[in-house]
Amino acid sequence: MNAEMFPQLRRDPIVNRWALIAPERAARPGAIIEPAALPNHESECPFCEGRESLTPPEIFALRDADSPPNYPGWRVRIVPNRFPAVRGSLGSHELIVECPQHEASFARFSADHAADVLRAVARRFRELRETHASCYPLFFKNHGSAAGASLAHAHSQIIAMCGVPPIVAEEIAAIRQHEKQHGRCLFCDLVAEEIATGVRVVRQSESIIAFTALAGRFPYETWIMPRRHTANVEAESDDCLFEAAEILRFVLRRLEQVAGGPAYNLILHTGPWDGSPFHWHMELLPRITGAAGFEWGAGVFINPLPPEVAAAKFRDEAY
Amino acid sequence: MNAEMFPQLRRDPIVNRWALIAPERAARPGAIIEPAALPNHESECPFCEGRESLTPPEIFALRDADSPPNYPGWRVRIVPNRFPAVRGSLGSHELIVECPQHEASFARFSADHAADVLRAVARRFRELRETHASCYPLFFKNHGSAAGASLAHAHSQIIAMCGVPPIVAEEIAAIRQHEKQHGRCLFCDLVAEEIATGVRVVRQSESIIAFTALAGRFPYETWIMPRRHTANVEAESDDCLFEAAEILRFVLRRLEQVAGGPAYNLILHTGPWDGSPFHWHMELLPRITGAAGFEWGAGVFINPLPPEVAAAKFRDEAY
Repeated sequence: MNAEMFPQLRRDPIVNRWALIAPERAARPGAIIEPAALPNHESECPFCEGRESLTPPEIFALRDADSPPNYPGWRVRIVPNRFPAVRGSLGSHELIVECPQHEASFARFSADHAADVLRAVARRFRELRETHASCYPLFFKNHGSAAGASLAHAHSQIIAMCGVPPIVAEEIAAIRQHEKQHGRCLFCDLVAEEIATGVRVVRQSESIIAFTALAGRFPYETWIMPRRHTANVEAESDDCLFEAAEILRFVLRRLEQVAGGPAYNLILHTGPWDGSPFHWHMELLPRITGAAGFEWGAGVFINPLPPEVAAAKFRDEAY
Repeated sequence: MNAEMFPQLRRDPIVNRWALIAPERAARPGAIIEPAALPNHESECPFCEGRESLTPPEIFALRDADSPPNYPGWRVRIVPNRFPAVRGSLGSHELIVECPQHEASFARFSADHAADVLRAVARRFRELRETHASCYPLFFKNHGSAAGASLAHAHSQIIAMCGVPPIVAEEIAAIRQHEKQHGRCLFCDLVAEEIATGVRVVRQSESIIAFTALAGRFPYETWIMPRRHTANVEAESDDCLFEAAEILRFVLRRLEQVAGGPAYNLILHTGPWDGSPFHWHMELLPRITGAAGFEWGAGVFINPLPPEVAAAKFRDEAY
């Protein structure tokens, strides 16, 4: 890394958001949020197998063919959120219990189990599309206390909310404008450019690519998406979702190794059900640095780790 | 409060950002961030009077007429940030030491002293306008650990950065569109509407008004602005800045009383120096709830406290 190249102001290639890539800020006292362990609570964890009665009745589960709902025998389980942000005509707020055992980390799931989590999300999206056609389904995962989680047992959420949320709408506007100007999908062009440049690529498989975000808000911010154009994650095959889970698992395992297991948010954007142009993708936001007055007031994120350095660390290469 | 009216999805009147006002979420475990005290560090605090040599040489100070720079005798002092996010051609990153004694809370300043802080900011903006004409000056304050502060002694920051930052640009676009449609300033109309409705008004003086934000991102989010149209805070008289500081001091004191002294970010948006239409304002963001996957992924903020209830609490009235 050539320190004289920084700080650099970068514009996000999709939405109107900037990042100040400023390695000098890494030396600031308090620059890094130390991961704080969540209370374990295993003895009373409502998500563990055998305690199904401690959650509202399940909406969906991947479970053994002969096991009845709300009893053991499940691999992934979706239940209503007990403290819903939306309900009724505004939408649905659901909680995905990602595994039956008291395990906190998606990174430590087996390959098959990790794939089952994404497949459960995709199948639930297909159901919601029937029952909540005017909603937009946001899948997200808060891991660790600094990322907003309150329970250790691996879980994630779906909020299906009426209307297309502002950030997704901004992505669609950018996709439409790029399509008008260039006749191609903005995300497809971004993937092609990241592969050509190579310096931010973290990992690729046949169908999926992960690269660090050019204007990442947080250190190690990584985007994961299909290499070929697909608008909706719920249209992907089980094999493709296995690949996506494998890449996600790799990135999360490497994140534990290079950054000491930080808290993170994971976001999945799929195409809205009104048929707007889209290219589904996941955004992994390690909550290593905070968002403070400058970020909230300017829409500019101070990121002390150049995304190119982050990608090299993920790949275990010198930069 | 009529609980059956909620949850409510509200659009911000200025920018493309939504809030889900969801009182049920207040019951969620971990819904509230407990304020964590910052280390006091008084014995080695670099901001205390008499330790001027521990900061870079001052850029600006309000100080006694006979006192030399970088020695005691100052009331408010502005120095370069030792860990700048921007420098050189990208801009200037400055730190405002708000008081000489080891005091953490703006709310406990005297009325005159609070006014001096805003006057120092306004005067520094006028200087930056000469030396950094192509920059935009963002004044912000991070108070408390959850808001990104690392030092207890009351301080705030100015980042003057090239270009108009994304959020300010979005505000300007909204102002221009409203002007085109209605021939009036969007913020002037908002002030008139808030006064007419009354339910979110926290406090008013001759020139300044504070009201809770219709689609507040965080509990008790409060906006403070001039009642009459003024684009730039640095064009305001010392008397008007005294009023603004008085209102801010009132809101912060009440926030300590009703919410137990939470961490907060304070943001000041002034008109860009390219002459774009504007109406200056401050946004107070108490960091009582977190931003997690849903907020980062959707641009929708889950706020468990209806802004009308927050305003009544500020006014010490039942709702």
